[in-house]
Amino acid sequence: MSRLRRYLPIMQWLPGYGRDTLVNDLLAALIVTVLLIPQSLAYAMLAGLPAQVGLYASIAPLLVYAVFGTSRTLSVGPVAIIALMTATVAGQVAGQGDLAYQGVVLVLAMLSGLILVVMGIARLGLLANFLSHPVISGFMTASAIIIAASQLKHLLGIEASGHTLLDLTHGLISNLPNVHWRTLSLGAGTLLFLYAARRWLRSGLARLGIPDRPAKLLTKAAPILAVAVTVGLTWALQLNQQGVAVVGQVPASLPPIALPNMDLAVWRDLFVGALLISIVGFVESVSVGQTLAAKRRQRIDPDQELIGLGASNLAASVTGGMPVTGGFSRSVVNYDAGAETPAAGAFTAAGIALASLTLTPLIAYLPLATLAATIIVAVVTLIDLSAIRRTWAYSRNDFMAMLATILITLFYGVESGILAGVGLSLIIHLYRTSRPHTALVGRVPESEHFRNIERHRVEVDERLAILRIDESLYFANSRYLEDTVLELAANQPKLRHLVLACQAVNLVDASALDSLEAVNARLRDADVELHLSEVKGPVMDRLQNTAFLRNLSGEVYLSTFDAWYALHGARPAELSTPEVGKHAMPNRIIHHFSKS
Amino acid sequence: MSRLRRYLPIMQWLPGYGRDTLVNDLLAALIVTVLLIPQSLAYAMLAGLPAQVGLYASIAPLLVYAVFGTSRTLSVGPVAIIALMTATVAGQVAGQGDLAYQGVVLVLAMLSGLILVVMGIARLGLLANFLSHPVISGFMTASAIIIAASQLKHLLGIEASGHTLLDLTHGLISNLPNVHWRTLSLGAGTLLFLYAARRWLRSGLARLGIPDRPAKLLTKAAPILAVAVTVGLTWALQLNQQGVAVVGQVPASLPPIALPNMDLAVWRDLFVGALLISIVGFVESVSVGQTLAAKRRQRIDPDQELIGLGASNLAASVTGGMPVTGGFSRSVVNYDAGAETPAAGAFTAAGIALASLTLTPLIAYLPLATLAATIIVAVVTLIDLSAIRRTWAYSRNDFMAMLATILITLFYGVESGILAGVGLSLIIHLYRTSRPHTALVGRVPESEHFRNIERHRVEVDERLAILRIDESLYFANSRYLEDTVLELAANQPKLRHLVLACQAVNLVDASALDSLEAVNARLRDADVELHLSEVKGPVMDRLQNTAFLRNLSGEVYLSTFDAWYALHGARPAELSTPEVGKHAMPNRIIHHFSKS
Repeated sequence: MSRLRRYLPIMQWLPGYGRDTLVNDLLAALIVTVLLIPQSLAYAMLAGLPAQVGLYASIAPLLVYAVFGTSRTLSVGPVAIIALMTATVAGQVAGQGDLAYQGVVLVLAMLSGLILVVMGIARLGLLANFLSHPVISGFMTASAIIIAASQLKHLLGIEASGHTLLDLTHGLISNLPNVHWRTLSLGAGTLLFLYAARRWLRSGLARLGIPDRPAKLLTKAAPILAVAVTVGLTWALQLNQQGVAVVGQVPASLPPIALPNMDLAVWRDLFVGALLISIVGFVESVSVGQTLAAKRRQRIDPDQELIGLGASNLAASVTGGMPVTGGFSRSVVNYDAGAETPAAGAFTAAGIALASLTLTPLIAYLPLATLAATIIVAVVTLIDLSAIRRTWAYSRNDFMAMLATILITLFYGVESGILAGVGLSLIIHLYRTSRPHTALVGRVPESEHFRNIERHRVEVDERLAILRIDESLYFANSRYLEDTVLELAANQPKLRHLVLACQAVNLVDASALDSLEAVNARLRDADVELHLSEVKGPVMDRLQNTAFLRNLSGEVYLSTFDAWYALHGARPAELSTPEVGKHAMPNRIIHHFSKS
Repeated sequence: MSRLRRYLPIMQWLPGYGRDTLVNDLLAALIVTVLLIPQSLAYAMLAGLPAQVGLYASIAPLLVYAVFGTSRTLSVGPVAIIALMTATVAGQVAGQGDLAYQGVVLVLAMLSGLILVVMGIARLGLLANFLSHPVISGFMTASAIIIAASQLKHLLGIEASGHTLLDLTHGLISNLPNVHWRTLSLGAGTLLFLYAARRWLRSGLARLGIPDRPAKLLTKAAPILAVAVTVGLTWALQLNQQGVAVVGQVPASLPPIALPNMDLAVWRDLFVGALLISIVGFVESVSVGQTLAAKRRQRIDPDQELIGLGASNLAASVTGGMPVTGGFSRSVVNYDAGAETPAAGAFTAAGIALASLTLTPLIAYLPLATLAATIIVAVVTLIDLSAIRRTWAYSRNDFMAMLATILITLFYGVESGILAGVGLSLIIHLYRTSRPHTALVGRVPESEHFRNIERHRVEVDERLAILRIDESLYFANSRYLEDTVLELAANQPKLRHLVLACQAVNLVDASALDSLEAVNARLRDADVELHLSEVKGPVMDRLQNTAFLRNLSGEVYLSTFDAWYALHGARPAELSTPEVGKHAMPNRIIHHFSKS
């Protein structure tokens, strides 16, 4: 039963669902439905798809998320970044105009749904950690710039294509003489209106005495007003007959239910793209979900979120949709509108289904320039220049990863950008840990403690070196360990015993084991015995049956002091354990001094 | 001057070069020249190139390595794995028969040379650490299997192509009815002879009283004997007229000197492949170099090795060669033959130049089946099943990375295989460190020490939690930190103060800084103050000017005890520092107890 509750979070809230919650959720759904229609249409266009696909992708996924998702207020559907990535990835397999294109997008949604579900079942939510914050932030900023640039053609009424900044600007500049002035006037007007609304409407309403929450929602209604007015204008002036591009005839229907194309070659070509879309979508969704949950002291479960988002994408793929995720702006609208449970999402789905049956005659007159203006105003908020400044001030390494992500995203496209950012983050991290801190230690006189010989007055013995290793040993630093130890042996000709003090070693992987074997063999050739001390239990368990331990020239000592005593031959000291200490601390604690 | 000596290692040995060394080097060069000719021809064929390219690639690169390389005995030239990777990467850009193919290979050598030199100047030798030992070992095993499979067609005298095991076996099976029996007899005979020589010749010679070193070299001469005999047979019986494929007419000339193709599109297509070839070649070369250097107590400098190998590849690219690296079998031959300095390599280059001017009439009759047999016998030694067994026994995680590398290399090709192996190693490592060890600690009674509350009898305070973090904070574990802290706060309703004890935190990257900010904000909302203690100097320096520190709800304490004293309000204790301790350990050492 608790297992069922974990995999079906709906069981946690549905049984206690009451009348008040119902009213709040219904009201929120009404608001969200109205506000989300332009966004859904716009992001379908951004992905190179017919506008109604955006509506379809806002129906089934919401219903499914209500069952499997753990966030109470997250709103799943088409979002800007994922729409851009969809266009890029699908565009590599089929042309945007082609009939096949829509089928490819459905495969992408299904693949990405499967990847997410598998990751969720394997509880791999932590994999999202591959994306460091500077990389995500740089990627968002660069993607927003590309998205805005890709929409300029609709504002200008000209042709231009491409998925990188160079291609886009090149297309725009060479077609600039063909600007369609009616389209531009309409688009620029909408843009100015939306910008002004975002900038001044809320404070203006506040000055009129309207409370903050409705003022916020009214501000968010600006796009729907822009849509209504421009549709009206286009219809009244028959602008579509005068070269203003519009959405055009859209079938008035519920989403078509069908399985996507099962051609394995297509699936293989889309795999990497689908993986990237899944991870970026998951990271965006979890960030939004956690932010909203924290405001109400709720928690979300990242692994279950993978399943919820995966199921939503699977639903999108069999109902003529596109890849979806939990979007920031849509979720904030939902939250501000007062949604209390995922039921609000389900009601929104019903509302959008109704819209896709009834509003299509109006949508036919919707100018593409209006949608483009909506998109531009939405994505400009993703451009975060202050994050760039802050990262520069805080860490040059992180800044490098961020800058590379931005530049490669802008000039090579979203796939390369995100991959380069992840790669660079990893390289920087490995580089940082590939030279672990090590210290030669000596004995604090009359004690069982050992400290860095460069920082403390300690006893040393030129025939005996004790090297403390302050990091786990794994493939990225195993060669450095070899180098350090062999150099030590080369520089200290009287050396006969080398003790590796392993209190900070939590792991010895197979590469490090090979290195230890090599160190042991080479030290043996140089007549130096290799010893270990303070090896942790789990590490020791693994070493137990290896050739390394069988061939070890020296011993494994429980404590570094045991090693010192055996190899240097100090008296066990009139053991300086103090009166008070003896009383207060049992032996194992004294022992642990050197382990803490 | 010392800078010059570092970049031109030849300065370290040439000034002291004496007559004895000269004699030894000349003798070694003579032996190596004779032994390496079949290998050089064979690896050119493996890379899909005319046989003489293998000779050309064994001339200029050796001269250049003698100037820039740091290993005394490494022998640079064509090697099996790099030849296979060359065939795979170049084959994606041009067909193996095409005129353009050879040009593409030259670009590959130049690109890979440039990459190595740049990495060397940037001192990025540590990047080779990306390849964990199980990944390298798995990659070698799988590549050897593919190489052996790719040579079967020459043994059988049939057609078959492809770079993956499936393609190769498919080709072999479908053409099996066309087996050319004369070729097969010749090839199988050579194979048996080479195998028998390797297995029994050395011990047989030992039984005849021949000392070990000449016996070893005679054993290694088996391939040249096989070449001589089969060339003789082919010429005498005119087997080449009867369908036995031979190397054929080869121009008797020194290497042609020319710059490779400068078409940027080709360069871009080859970049990733060249990068992989560079890294794999570097790893192989450094491993061989270090093993041989250690036997004579010499050291090599990995960063300078990058420059040496890079320069060798640049030399290969302008003298009609192919990508080269320090090979295991060629270097062992050189070492066993008694080479003392890189001058032996230079003399070998002269020998091979002479061979390429004089031996071509004989090479024309060399059956491809003989070369195939040489290759198969050489690469079978790379198949290391015991490494697979050992890795399985030692660590399931490492075994998974190894198995994935093997399977993907076999069934998708060398590029995908090595990339997947690297990726999986990283994923496994990040997964391991993404859940850092943390411990709630309490005060050891009457002391300034704090220990894990689950393992020791310690004082605690339900309004105050002290969390010790045992790892640096970076992007892979920053979310886990957030989760841990917030869960702690949620489970301890009386909590008012949370202290993060940071003695083991060597780094806080930008992602972790964001997480700390988020933790601070959310704890503040829950009326819990966040404090830090024992923040290391360099970490504190960075935090100094951040918004996090300005907005921190609590304080930064020098020691955990200070935090305890301030927040719990203990008397500073009749400080239980013992008589002896006071005397023996200055204060800073006592202070460092909690830092060691």
